[in-house]
Amino acid sequence: MAAKYVYFFGNGSAEGNATMKNLLGGKGANLAEMTSIGLPVPPGFTISTEVCTYYYANGNSYPSSLEAETNANLKKVEELMGRTFGDAKNPLLVSVRSGARASMPGMMDTILNLGLNDTTVQGIIAQSGDERFAYDAYRRFIQMYSDVVMGMNKHVLEHLLEKKKESKGVHLDTELTAADWKELVVAFKAAVKEELGQDFPEDPRDQLWGAIGAVFGSWMNQRAITYRKLNNIPADWGTAVNVQSMVFGNMGDDCATGVAFTRDPSTGEDYFYGEYLVNAQGEDVVAGIRTPQPINLHQKKPGDLPSMEEVLPECYAQLANIRSILEKHYQDMQDIEFTIEKGKLYMLQTRNGKRTAKAAIKIAVEMEKEGLIDEKTAVLRVAPSQLDQLLHPSLDPKAEKTIIAKGLPASPGAASGEVVFTADEAEAEAKVGKRVILVRVETSPEDIHGMHAARGILTARGGMTSHAAVVARGMGKCCVAGCGDIKVDYKSESFVARNGLVVKKGDMITLDGSTGEVMLGEVPTVSPEMTGDFATLMGWVDKYRRLKVRTNADTPHDSKVARQFGAEGIGLCRTEHMFFEADRIAAVREMILAEDLEGRKKALAKILPMQKGDFIGIFREMKGLPVTIRLLDPPLHEFLPQEEKDIEALAATMGVSTQQLKHKVEFLHEFNPMLGHRGCRLGLTFPEIYDMQVQAIMEAACELVKNEGFTIVPEIMIPLIATVSELKVLRANAIRVCDEVIARYGVQVEYLIGTMIELPRAALTADEIAREAEFFSFGTNDLTQTTFGLSRDDAGKFLPFYVEANILPEDPFVSLDQSGVGKLVQMACQLGRSTREKIKLGICGEHGGDPASVIFCHEVGLDYVSCSPFRVPIARLAAAHANLGGGTDLTK
Amino acid sequence: MAAKYVYFFGNGSAEGNATMKNLLGGKGANLAEMTSIGLPVPPGFTISTEVCTYYYANGNSYPSSLEAETNANLKKVEELMGRTFGDAKNPLLVSVRSGARASMPGMMDTILNLGLNDTTVQGIIAQSGDERFAYDAYRRFIQMYSDVVMGMNKHVLEHLLEKKKESKGVHLDTELTAADWKELVVAFKAAVKEELGQDFPEDPRDQLWGAIGAVFGSWMNQRAITYRKLNNIPADWGTAVNVQSMVFGNMGDDCATGVAFTRDPSTGEDYFYGEYLVNAQGEDVVAGIRTPQPINLHQKKPGDLPSMEEVLPECYAQLANIRSILEKHYQDMQDIEFTIEKGKLYMLQTRNGKRTAKAAIKIAVEMEKEGLIDEKTAVLRVAPSQLDQLLHPSLDPKAEKTIIAKGLPASPGAASGEVVFTADEAEAEAKVGKRVILVRVETSPEDIHGMHAARGILTARGGMTSHAAVVARGMGKCCVAGCGDIKVDYKSESFVARNGLVVKKGDMITLDGSTGEVMLGEVPTVSPEMTGDFATLMGWVDKYRRLKVRTNADTPHDSKVARQFGAEGIGLCRTEHMFFEADRIAAVREMILAEDLEGRKKALAKILPMQKGDFIGIFREMKGLPVTIRLLDPPLHEFLPQEEKDIEALAATMGVSTQQLKHKVEFLHEFNPMLGHRGCRLGLTFPEIYDMQVQAIMEAACELVKNEGFTIVPEIMIPLIATVSELKVLRANAIRVCDEVIARYGVQVEYLIGTMIELPRAALTADEIAREAEFFSFGTNDLTQTTFGLSRDDAGKFLPFYVEANILPEDPFVSLDQSGVGKLVQMACQLGRSTREKIKLGICGEHGGDPASVIFCHEVGLDYVSCSPFRVPIARLAAAHANLGGGTDLTK
Repeated sequence: MAAKYVYFFGNGSAEGNATMKNLLGGKGANLAEMTSIGLPVPPGFTISTEVCTYYYANGNSYPSSLEAETNANLKKVEELMGRTFGDAKNPLLVSVRSGARASMPGMMDTILNLGLNDTTVQGIIAQSGDERFAYDAYRRFIQMYSDVVMGMNKHVLEHLLEKKKESKGVHLDTELTAADWKELVVAFKAAVKEELGQDFPEDPRDQLWGAIGAVFGSWMNQRAITYRKLNNIPADWGTAVNVQSMVFGNMGDDCATGVAFTRDPSTGEDYFYGEYLVNAQGEDVVAGIRTPQPINLHQKKPGDLPSMEEVLPECYAQLANIRSILEKHYQDMQDIEFTIEKGKLYMLQTRNGKRTAKAAIKIAVEMEKEGLIDEKTAVLRVAPSQLDQLLHPSLDPKAEKTIIAKGLPASPGAASGEVVFTADEAEAEAKVGKRVILVRVETSPEDIHGMHAARGILTARGGMTSHAAVVARGMGKCCVAGCGDIKVDYKSESFVARNGLVVKKGDMITLDGSTGEVMLGEVPTVSPEMTGDFATLMGWVDKYRRLKVRTNADTPHDSKVARQFGAEGIGLCRTEHMFFEADRIAAVREMILAEDLEGRKKALAKILPMQKGDFIGIFREMKGLPVTIRLLDPPLHEFLPQEEKDIEALAATMGVSTQQLKHKVEFLHEFNPMLGHRGCRLGLTFPEIYDMQVQAIMEAACELVKNEGFTIVPEIMIPLIATVSELKVLRANAIRVCDEVIARYGVQVEYLIGTMIELPRAALTADEIAREAEFFSFGTNDLTQTTFGLSRDDAGKFLPFYVEANILPEDPFVSLDQSGVGKLVQMACQLGRSTREKIKLGICGEHGGDPASVIFCHEVGLDYVSCSPFRVPIARLAAAHANLGGGTDLTK
Repeated sequence: MAAKYVYFFGNGSAEGNATMKNLLGGKGANLAEMTSIGLPVPPGFTISTEVCTYYYANGNSYPSSLEAETNANLKKVEELMGRTFGDAKNPLLVSVRSGARASMPGMMDTILNLGLNDTTVQGIIAQSGDERFAYDAYRRFIQMYSDVVMGMNKHVLEHLLEKKKESKGVHLDTELTAADWKELVVAFKAAVKEELGQDFPEDPRDQLWGAIGAVFGSWMNQRAITYRKLNNIPADWGTAVNVQSMVFGNMGDDCATGVAFTRDPSTGEDYFYGEYLVNAQGEDVVAGIRTPQPINLHQKKPGDLPSMEEVLPECYAQLANIRSILEKHYQDMQDIEFTIEKGKLYMLQTRNGKRTAKAAIKIAVEMEKEGLIDEKTAVLRVAPSQLDQLLHPSLDPKAEKTIIAKGLPASPGAASGEVVFTADEAEAEAKVGKRVILVRVETSPEDIHGMHAARGILTARGGMTSHAAVVARGMGKCCVAGCGDIKVDYKSESFVARNGLVVKKGDMITLDGSTGEVMLGEVPTVSPEMTGDFATLMGWVDKYRRLKVRTNADTPHDSKVARQFGAEGIGLCRTEHMFFEADRIAAVREMILAEDLEGRKKALAKILPMQKGDFIGIFREMKGLPVTIRLLDPPLHEFLPQEEKDIEALAATMGVSTQQLKHKVEFLHEFNPMLGHRGCRLGLTFPEIYDMQVQAIMEAACELVKNEGFTIVPEIMIPLIATVSELKVLRANAIRVCDEVIARYGVQVEYLIGTMIELPRAALTADEIAREAEFFSFGTNDLTQTTFGLSRDDAGKFLPFYVEANILPEDPFVSLDQSGVGKLVQMACQLGRSTREKIKLGICGEHGGDPASVIFCHEVGLDYVSCSPFRVPIARLAAAHANLGGGTDLTK
């Protein structure tokens, strides 16, 4: 038996159904489904995606049986419609539309009114009794077909149309008469002949095969290729072709066409939401020439044109009924297209409707309450990535905006404030109650206090994972990074934006960290609402996930925020940020400049009580939950100034000679600080630093246990381990200090000692390293840097090009590179468990808040992910998706 | 049956033999062997290394059967010697010596004359008829025993001895009388009692067990632990204890003691080489108090004392005979110890003799000719690492040296010259015929021309794999790097060395790149000799290896040198060094500064003919051999100056504003250049650069084919690939250019396109990458940097500490880290072959010239290694060792 390539639908029965999207495309599958459940769908047939695959695999040719199969199906349509394709008296007209497995809006081609020629147009006149309609349809067909199928420059025919209107002294198409259209049809065909040197096809079957070929051809046009790349759609999926009998919404005032959603796609509210136009073809609704009318009274606002509920009450009632049939049938909110031809309603499309995050949550929660779906399905209906929209203040969508620059959307949310250029200014202005935006070429750890004080951060350089971006996301603070549109001049305390606009210190600007836009003046914002629906959904989310979600937090405040967002502990508490605070940086610098061990110990003794205080605060906020503390990681030079004048100033403050300080800065300079003297390498060469930190951690824990009846299990984490020997030494040191503190306080405190896995060598030898580690935390930021040999701070010059040219599917610092970095993570998990079966495994890189990466973490069997406080709900939802087998994203 | 712990030897038969080194230690095994083959060995027994292991595994206790077994063996010795341990009349004295599996010279303890006490000393007087001898032996025993076994400060007894000599008004021990020694014995024992609060043991059995315990205890003393760490000897090997009846070389003028080598250990010449002393104990030969005498007439020089051949002709004849017995038996040059007691010769030790590289080669080749060993054994007798000694000029060992500083032995060889501080000066001075040494804080690619011009390079900063070190090794030029002893001051054109010595520009210094020493003035050097023996051996080497050896060479000159050293092609031709030459750096900079593609192409067009010329030169030298050319790798900023004044100067030359040039330099600045915009990332963002290079390569190849009838297969290598998509694009580009050139010339040229595997991600996804690569070349320098997260240029601050503290067994940039980096190499080989079975695999990192790494490369199945020209013979020999199953290193 020959393979089946064509699937019929019509008159209440269909050869396909909604589950056959891979074969029939989304549109074809749903046309079949709607037909089967008795909805009024114009009959037609779908040529399957296998033909597309065959077409490209066989030098743009069709399977030999396709023509006969198409003809047979066309015959069935003719029979059902009582019309004949190409017939002079009662001709059948069809539409030819593409329809791929995944929606690719506007990416591929559509032909309407196919079957018209000089003969059949007479039949349409007879059928419709409307010569103007018939010639309008005919000229539309010639325009579409010559453009899409024949590849003619469409401006030629548009120009003829314009000239005709000029000569008639009219402005609108609707003002042209039947005679005008008839003349234009002749002129159009002549123009086609002249431009292309060939006649416009008169034979409807030639037209049909031309259109089918054009649809398959459009699968490989540049737009479609680019779209697929951007959306990760494989080229071998192919498209289907839907051939369907035409129905007309433009045959008079008892005709109409419209689109609707079964619920409000922006709020999720449960009412029928849509627009329609009387006497119009589908394309007119989208084209925006006429103002669409509301579909019902519920939507109608003062000044609106009459609603469909009023104008075509019977059709509306029928459509409203179909709305509830579709929701019950598909168990999801639907996006539909319909046409009314002479008072008769036809359904042309249904599909799951795209929606905002807010709507997604509301619809999911309410559908569960209505009994349409269960909790698990509800959880899967909300895309983790889009939750971000809800967790930050956002710009009032109705507000006016003057966009003066655009950078990377580095940390979501929106904020307005006066421009300042230094961290100190930011702090000073904030102290007197001003809202400020910190603008820097790029930020460094020394700017932390200013970033804290500012409402938002704008940098001219740096990528999505630059210092500014990472820290801002950690703080849940809005940030636009790598904004190449601005040129910052610290000297004149101003920056130049697009079109040479100069923004000075004190000028008000607004940042949108979700889009990367920078606006002049203050744009009003709206606050995030953690509605009841959100809470309900997150309750289900927590019920259906296995992976724990912790947070990366360095302060009691961040810890508190994260706990409100549902964090189940701290997966990464960076101790170096504590070193930068104004009251301790002096002691840190004293330590670095000390000539000998005694000097360093003296300085460290000053830092000890302050760090202990930090840990007490954090432990209190996280009472009952685990807290992983990473010992000092960055190279020491990060704590010293680099600029000549800052060095001079510091030398004066510290009471050392400028020369001496310069020598130290020079001595500490590194060519590749990322690969330098940092992490455990510091802990090994200056053991007194880690000793102090471990002491501070354990004293904090012991005091809380002793005085506040706490239970806390500190997890001490040693960074940048490459070999087990490093960890062996440092672990022994840490145990010695811990046990000494515990003995001194005379209390019981358990603690764990573990390591980051953030270097390829650590992952490769994780079996050895697990001998000395009670837990692994994957530091996938550094692991990505070293595995790719790619510096986050420098990648800005080529990584955007890489992603654009599809050399990398995504920025590997945003979404974990599963086949490279992920392979190491997987190896390390297996190797680690082979040595220590119950080893605790987590991830604390930025990827811990990226949904795709969270799903990967679930799959490789990690125990938890850790991410910025504001991404905790996203990670929770992604973890539930992973456990439930994944959902679909209807919010994009 | 109880385990056997003690092995007897004596009177022509022994329970052990030479193959039992693991159990009996080297000394014990060879004493047994010599006994068995009938040589005169004083009888004794060996307590096996298993006892040592037992001792440490069981809280410093012995197996229960040990005492009885020891007693039984002691009895056998007593019977053979006709003397009794502790007997008043005819006492047996023994020596107790350690003896581990591997030689650990001076690391462990020895006790002589054991068994002496106030009673037995009378027996010795009776036996020897020499009271002075007996009391001298007795006091020696007390000194040794109290020090080694009892842990007494040896200066106490030495002080008493000095006082005695003072009181007698003599200077030498030999001037003391029997009475003096006898008094001292009393005084020594009193001092022991006073110092330690315990009596010196009188019972010989107590003495024996004390000595045995001391030998086992010495296995874990600090010296031994350090030595084992340095030489990679596992602690669980343990030491054996040899208890042997004493023979005395100091009983009169018919007594003697000596050491000898069966051939000359420094030249390898085939004559009996040794020294002896009449009337002396073994320790006297080593102690250097008396001048040893030559063993035979062959060695005797005018002014020498009489030789043993003259003084003790019979004993000499017997010894000479033993010499040839031992060489025939062991089939290797032996290092022996002997003692003559009253005209009777005793053999106390034999072992394979250590030797210089030169001697190793001569001995191996001559022994093969003598039929003692076969070619394979001869090859295995020479250690690859020590060949280095032979391949560079070296300091005349007889010359006087004033060492003023010491740094790292970064590139072997020796050179003298006048100090200069800039590359330009080096070039200028060299042009006028001066020999110069380039002294820099550190070098950068801009210094290449100066490094070429200089005789040697001295840097204050940077490790064994710093730029200076790598480039110097590549050039085969001597280099002392990371010389922290010197402080360079460019302004005053001088550096300060040890003790504040100031060396100015123009002063003459000498470098020894093999030791890291810097000397004042000119020290004469001797040239390397590629003797006939060397050539013979290398012929055998090439016969018995599988792995090919290529070279890293960037110039026709290097290529020629490497070919003379036996290179079988070029494994890495770096094209960027060509960019730095004076005549083209201007065009390179023009390209970098160009505003657009056209500007870049214009500049590249100037470079094209020059690069083509380079390739023609290299291809000619390598005619018939493969040449792998790596396309541009370093980041563009390396081609621009970084210092303010250099930027100004360049701006003037280039005719651009300083501001503009500064902007470019600033724009190109990178935080981590190692992980930045380099390698294939440049090739992707500026495809015109690689296009030019590929064009130059192929035009060079085509012209040679066309005009000179060449056969050459260029291997085009793309660096820093992380993902197959990068390679896919670049490979397609390269093929396009190649095919265009080939078509233009109308000739047949085959070419290969492959990639470096130098990033962990490339290794992890080598199966994918192999789809687009015809060969892999492991760039283990960068692979080590990224796998460890360790910058070569910055590691100097902690890597030496790591190696010293045994956190890393070795500098991973010198010897490949097999368990981490090696695991990636192995994975990549397997993955690569799984996609492309016949993929060509090589290594071009510095490790290609390190013997241990070469052996690893052989084992993972690489096709070739590539290294600096001067290391080619080393790699060839290491490859042969790998293929023959590995040799032992007798040159250290």
